[in-house]
Amino acid sequence: MRQADYSFYKFLPGATLADAEEKVTAALKREGFGVLTRIDVKDTLKKKIDVDFRPYLILGACNPRLAHRALSQDDTVGLLLPCNVVVAQKNDGAEIALARPQSMFEAVKNPDVQPLADEAEERIRRVFESL
Amino acid sequence: MRQADYSFYKFLPGATLADAEEKVTAALKREGFGVLTRIDVKDTLKKKIDVDFRPYLILGACNPRLAHRALSQDDTVGLLLPCNVVVAQKNDGAEIALARPQSMFEAVKNPDVQPLADEAEERIRRVFESL
Repeated sequence: MRQADYSFYKFLPGATLADAEEKVTAALKREGFGVLTRIDVKDTLKKKIDVDFRPYLILGACNPRLAHRALSQDDTVGLLLPCNVVVAQKNDGAEIALARPQSMFEAVKNPDVQPLADEAEERIRRVFESL
Repeated sequence: MRQADYSFYKFLPGATLADAEEKVTAALKREGFGVLTRIDVKDTLKKKIDVDFRPYLILGACNPRLAHRALSQDDTVGLLLPCNVVVAQKNDGAEIALARPQSMFEAVKNPDVQPLADEAEERIRRVFESL
Protein backbone atom coordinates (compact mmCIF):
# COMPACT_ATOMS: atom_id res chain seq x y z
CA MET A 1 0.00 0.00 0.00
CA ARG A 2 0.97 3.64 -0.07
CA GLN A 3 0.32 6.90 1.70
CA ALA A 4 -2.51 8.56 -0.23
CA ASP A 5 -4.25 11.93 0.15
CA TYR A 6 -7.22 10.08 1.59
CA SER A 7 -5.32 7.86 4.05
CA PHE A 8 -2.94 7.54 6.95
CA TYR A 9 -0.42 4.75 6.40
CA LYS A 10 1.93 2.88 8.71
CA PHE A 11 4.23 -0.09 8.24
CA LEU A 12 4.94 -2.25 11.30
CA PRO A 13 8.24 -4.09 10.70
CA GLY A 14 8.19 -7.74 11.74
CA ALA A 15 4.49 -7.66 12.70
CA THR A 16 2.03 -10.35 11.69
CA LEU A 17 -1.44 -9.58 10.35
CA ALA A 18 -2.90 -10.71 13.69
CA ASP A 19 -0.55 -8.38 15.63
CA ALA A 20 -1.48 -5.44 13.45
CA GLU A 21 -5.21 -6.14 13.62
CA GLU A 22 -5.06 -6.41 17.43
CA LYS A 23 -3.02 -3.22 17.71
CA VAL A 24 -5.25 -1.09 15.52
CA THR A 25 -8.45 -2.50 17.04
CA ALA A 26 -7.23 -1.54 20.54
CA ALA A 27 -6.17 1.93 19.34
CA LEU A 28 -9.56 2.48 17.67
CA LYS A 29 -11.32 1.44 20.87
CA ARG A 30 -9.44 4.11 22.85
CA GLU A 31 -10.95 6.71 20.50
CA GLY A 32 -14.45 5.27 20.80
CA PHE A 33 -14.50 3.29 17.53
CA GLY A 34 -15.77 -0.28 17.51
CA VAL A 35 -15.08 -2.61 14.59
CA LEU A 36 -18.52 -3.42 13.14
CA THR A 37 -17.50 -5.23 9.97
CA ARG A 38 -14.52 -7.34 8.90
CA ILE A 39 -13.95 -8.47 5.32
CA ASP A 40 -11.23 -11.06 4.79
CA VAL A 41 -10.36 -10.14 1.20
CA LYS A 42 -8.02 -13.09 0.64
CA ASP A 43 -10.69 -15.60 1.71
CA THR A 44 -13.47 -13.78 -0.15
CA LEU A 45 -11.57 -13.64 -3.46
CA LYS A 46 -10.55 -17.29 -3.15
CA LYS A 47 -14.09 -18.39 -2.41
CA LYS A 48 -15.93 -16.19 -4.93
CA ILE A 49 -13.63 -16.17 -7.97
CA ASP A 50 -10.82 -18.61 -7.06
CA VAL A 51 -7.93 -16.14 -7.22
CA ASP A 52 -5.03 -15.85 -4.79
CA PHE A 53 -4.43 -12.62 -2.93
CA ARG A 54 -2.23 -11.77 0.03
CA PRO A 55 -3.67 -11.63 3.56
CA TYR A 56 -5.67 -8.39 3.51
CA LEU A 57 -8.50 -7.28 5.81
CA ILE A 58 -10.97 -4.41 5.46
CA LEU A 59 -12.29 -3.40 8.88
CA GLY A 60 -15.30 -1.09 9.26
CA ALA A 61 -14.81 1.12 12.33
CA CYS A 62 -17.58 3.23 13.81
CA ASN A 63 -17.76 5.68 16.68
CA PRO A 64 -21.46 5.36 17.54
CA ARG A 65 -21.79 8.83 19.15
CA LEU A 66 -20.28 10.58 16.14
CA ALA A 67 -22.25 8.38 13.72
CA HIS A 68 -25.51 9.13 15.52
CA ARG A 69 -24.87 12.89 15.45
CA ALA A 70 -23.95 12.78 11.75
CA LEU A 71 -26.97 10.64 10.80
CA SER A 72 -29.27 12.90 12.83
CA GLN A 73 -28.06 15.90 10.79
CA ASP A 74 -28.09 14.17 7.40
CA ASP A 75 -29.10 10.54 7.14
CA THR A 76 -27.66 10.19 3.64
CA VAL A 77 -24.17 10.05 5.16
CA GLY A 78 -24.69 6.40 6.08
CA LEU A 79 -23.35 5.84 2.55
CA LEU A 80 -19.97 7.02 3.88
CA LEU A 81 -19.94 4.94 7.06
CA PRO A 82 -18.22 3.09 8.65
CA CYS A 83 -14.66 4.39 8.49
CA ASN A 84 -12.46 1.86 6.74
CA VAL A 85 -9.18 0.48 8.02
CA VAL A 86 -7.06 -1.91 5.96
CA VAL A 87 -4.62 -4.34 7.56
CA ALA A 88 -2.41 -6.35 5.19
CA GLN A 89 0.51 -8.74 5.43
CA LYS A 90 3.80 -8.20 3.66
CA ASN A 91 6.88 -10.42 3.75
CA ASP A 92 8.67 -8.32 6.33
CA GLY A 93 5.85 -6.94 8.41
CA ALA A 94 2.30 -5.70 8.36
CA GLU A 95 0.69 -2.59 6.90
CA ILE A 96 -2.13 -0.51 8.35
CA ALA A 97 -4.00 2.15 6.39
CA LEU A 98 -6.82 4.29 7.79
CA ALA A 99 -9.25 6.22 5.62
CA ARG A 100 -9.25 9.95 6.47
CA PRO A 101 -12.79 10.98 7.47
CA GLN A 102 -12.39 14.51 6.05
CA SER A 103 -11.57 13.02 2.63
CA MET A 104 -14.44 10.56 2.80
CA PHE A 105 -16.89 13.33 3.75
CA GLU A 106 -15.62 15.83 1.16
CA ALA A 107 -18.58 15.02 -1.12
CA VAL A 108 -21.16 15.84 1.55
CA LYS A 109 -20.88 19.64 1.51
CA ASN A 110 -23.14 19.99 4.54
CA PRO A 111 -21.88 22.57 7.07
CA ASP A 112 -23.77 20.84 9.90
CA VAL A 113 -21.91 17.58 9.28
CA GLN A 114 -18.44 19.09 8.71
CA PRO A 115 -17.57 19.49 12.44
CA LEU A 116 -18.32 15.78 12.95
CA ALA A 117 -16.04 14.80 10.06
CA ASP A 118 -13.39 17.07 11.60
CA GLU A 119 -13.74 15.39 14.98
CA ALA A 120 -13.60 11.94 13.41
CA GLU A 121 -10.46 13.02 11.51
CA GLU A 122 -8.76 14.12 14.74
CA ARG A 123 -9.66 10.84 16.43
CA ILE A 124 -8.44 8.72 13.50
CA ARG A 125 -5.26 10.82 13.41
CA ARG A 126 -4.65 10.00 17.09
CA VAL A 127 -5.26 6.29 16.35
CA PHE A 128 -2.63 6.54 13.59
CA GLU A 129 -0.12 8.36 15.78
CA SER A 130 -0.47 5.73 18.52
CA LEU A 131 0.38 2.80 16.24
CA MET B 1 -32.68 10.59 2.87
CA ARG B 2 -32.07 12.70 -0.19
CA GLN B 3 -30.57 12.50 -3.64
CA ALA B 4 -26.96 13.65 -3.25
CA ASP B 5 -24.15 14.19 -5.76
CA TYR B 6 -22.56 11.00 -4.47
CA SER B 7 -25.67 8.80 -4.49
CA PHE B 8 -28.55 7.30 -6.40
CA TYR B 9 -31.80 7.48 -4.43
CA LYS B 10 -35.14 5.73 -4.77
CA PHE B 11 -38.27 5.67 -2.64
CA LEU B 12 -40.44 2.56 -2.80
CA PRO B 13 -43.99 3.52 -1.72
CA GLY B 14 -45.60 1.00 0.62
CA ALA B 15 -42.53 -1.20 0.81
CA THR B 16 -41.19 -2.61 4.07
CA LEU B 17 -37.51 -2.58 4.98
CA ALA B 18 -37.39 -6.34 4.30
CA ASP B 19 -38.97 -5.89 0.84
CA ALA B 20 -36.49 -3.19 -0.07
CA GLU B 21 -33.49 -5.14 1.22
CA GLU B 22 -34.54 -8.22 -0.75
CA LYS B 23 -35.15 -6.19 -3.90
CA VAL B 24 -31.83 -4.36 -3.86
CA THR B 25 -29.88 -7.50 -2.91
CA ALA B 26 -31.35 -9.36 -5.91
CA ALA B 27 -30.63 -6.40 -8.22
CA LEU B 28 -27.04 -6.18 -6.98
CA LYS B 29 -26.59 -9.90 -7.57
CA ARG B 30 -27.65 -9.52 -11.21
CA GLU B 31 -24.74 -7.07 -11.63
CA GLY B 32 -22.26 -9.38 -9.88
CA PHE B 33 -22.30 -7.70 -6.46
CA GLY B 34 -22.59 -9.81 -3.33
CA VAL B 35 -23.49 -8.26 0.03
CA LEU B 36 -20.44 -8.84 2.24
CA THR B 37 -21.39 -6.74 5.26
CA ARG B 38 -24.64 -5.65 6.89
CA ILE B 39 -24.82 -3.08 9.68
CA ASP B 40 -28.15 -2.76 11.44
CA VAL B 41 -27.78 0.87 12.54
CA LYS B 42 -30.92 0.92 14.69
CA ASP B 43 -29.78 -2.15 16.67
CA THR B 44 -26.18 -0.96 16.88
CA LEU B 45 -27.07 2.50 18.22
CA LYS B 46 -29.52 1.02 20.73
CA LYS B 47 -26.98 -1.49 21.99
CA LYS B 48 -23.92 0.77 22.04
CA ILE B 49 -25.29 4.13 23.24
CA ASP B 50 -28.97 3.41 24.04
CA VAL B 51 -30.51 5.83 21.53
CA ASP B 52 -33.51 5.19 19.30
CA PHE B 53 -33.13 5.42 15.54
CA ARG B 54 -35.41 4.34 12.71
CA PRO B 55 -34.84 1.00 10.91
CA TYR B 56 -31.75 1.72 8.81
CA LEU B 57 -29.30 -0.76 7.26
CA ILE B 58 -25.87 -0.15 5.71
CA LEU B 59 -25.04 -2.96 3.27
CA GLY B 60 -21.52 -3.41 1.87
CA ALA B 61 -21.75 -4.66 -1.74
CA CYS B 62 -18.77 -6.00 -3.62
CA ASN B 63 -18.25 -7.24 -7.17
CA PRO B 64 -15.28 -9.55 -6.59
CA ARG B 65 -13.96 -9.39 -10.17
CA LEU B 66 -13.93 -5.59 -10.20
CA ALA B 67 -12.52 -5.46 -6.65
CA HIS B 68 -9.73 -7.86 -7.56
CA ARG B 69 -8.77 -5.84 -10.63
CA ALA B 70 -8.81 -2.58 -8.66
CA LEU B 71 -6.78 -4.00 -5.76
CA SER B 72 -4.28 -5.51 -8.20
CA GLN B 73 -3.70 -2.02 -9.70
CA ASP B 74 -3.62 -0.14 -6.41
CA ASP B 75 -4.13 -1.99 -3.16
CA THR B 76 -4.79 1.21 -1.21
CA VAL B 77 -8.27 1.36 -2.72
CA GLY B 78 -9.46 -1.27 -0.22
CA LEU B 79 -10.11 1.83 1.91
CA LEU B 80 -12.94 2.68 -0.52
CA LEU B 81 -14.49 -0.78 -0.66
CA PRO B 82 -17.10 -2.22 -0.47
CA CYS B 83 -19.73 -0.07 -2.19
CA ASN B 84 -22.33 1.08 0.33
CA VAL B 85 -26.06 0.74 -0.01
CA VAL B 86 -28.46 2.14 2.59
CA VAL B 87 -31.95 0.74 3.08
CA ALA B 88 -34.20 2.61 5.51
CA GLN B 89 -37.81 2.50 6.65
CA LYS B 90 -40.15 5.48 6.49
CA ASN B 91 -43.80 5.62 7.55
CA ASP B 92 -45.11 5.25 4.02
CA GLY B 93 -42.51 3.08 2.35
CA ALA B 94 -38.82 2.26 2.19
CA GLU B 95 -35.83 4.19 0.88
CA ILE B 96 -32.80 2.86 -0.96
CA ALA B 97 -29.64 4.88 -1.56
CA LEU B 98 -26.60 3.59 -3.44
CA ALA B 99 -23.17 5.22 -3.22
CA ARG B 100 -21.87 6.24 -6.66
CA PRO B 101 -18.52 4.49 -7.27
CA GLN B 102 -17.16 7.39 -9.36
CA SER B 103 -17.73 9.76 -6.43
CA MET B 104 -16.20 7.36 -3.94
CA PHE B 105 -13.13 6.88 -6.13
CA GLU B 106 -12.69 10.59 -6.91
CA ALA B 107 -9.89 10.84 -4.35
CA VAL B 108 -7.83 8.05 -5.95
CA LYS B 109 -6.56 9.93 -9.01
CA ASN B 110 -5.07 6.76 -10.51
CA PRO B 111 -5.72 6.44 -14.27
CA ASP B 112 -5.34 2.64 -14.08
CA VAL B 113 -8.16 2.40 -11.55
CA GLN B 114 -10.52 4.92 -13.19
CA PRO B 115 -11.96 2.49 -15.80
CA LEU B 116 -12.88 0.10 -12.98
CA ALA B 117 -14.67 2.87 -11.07
CA ASP B 118 -16.46 3.74 -14.32
CA GLU B 119 -17.56 0.14 -14.82
CA ALA B 120 -18.73 -0.12 -11.20
CA GLU B 121 -20.67 3.14 -11.68
CA GLU B 122 -22.44 1.75 -14.76
CA ARG B 123 -23.34 -1.44 -12.91
CA ILE B 124 -24.63 0.41 -9.85
CA ARG B 125 -26.60 2.71 -12.14
CA ARG B 126 -28.27 -0.34 -13.70
CA VAL B 127 -29.05 -1.68 -10.20
CA PHE B 128 -30.69 1.68 -9.42
CA GLU B 129 -32.67 1.75 -12.66
CA SER B 130 -34.02 -1.75 -12.05
CA LEU B 131 -35.45 -0.91 -8.60
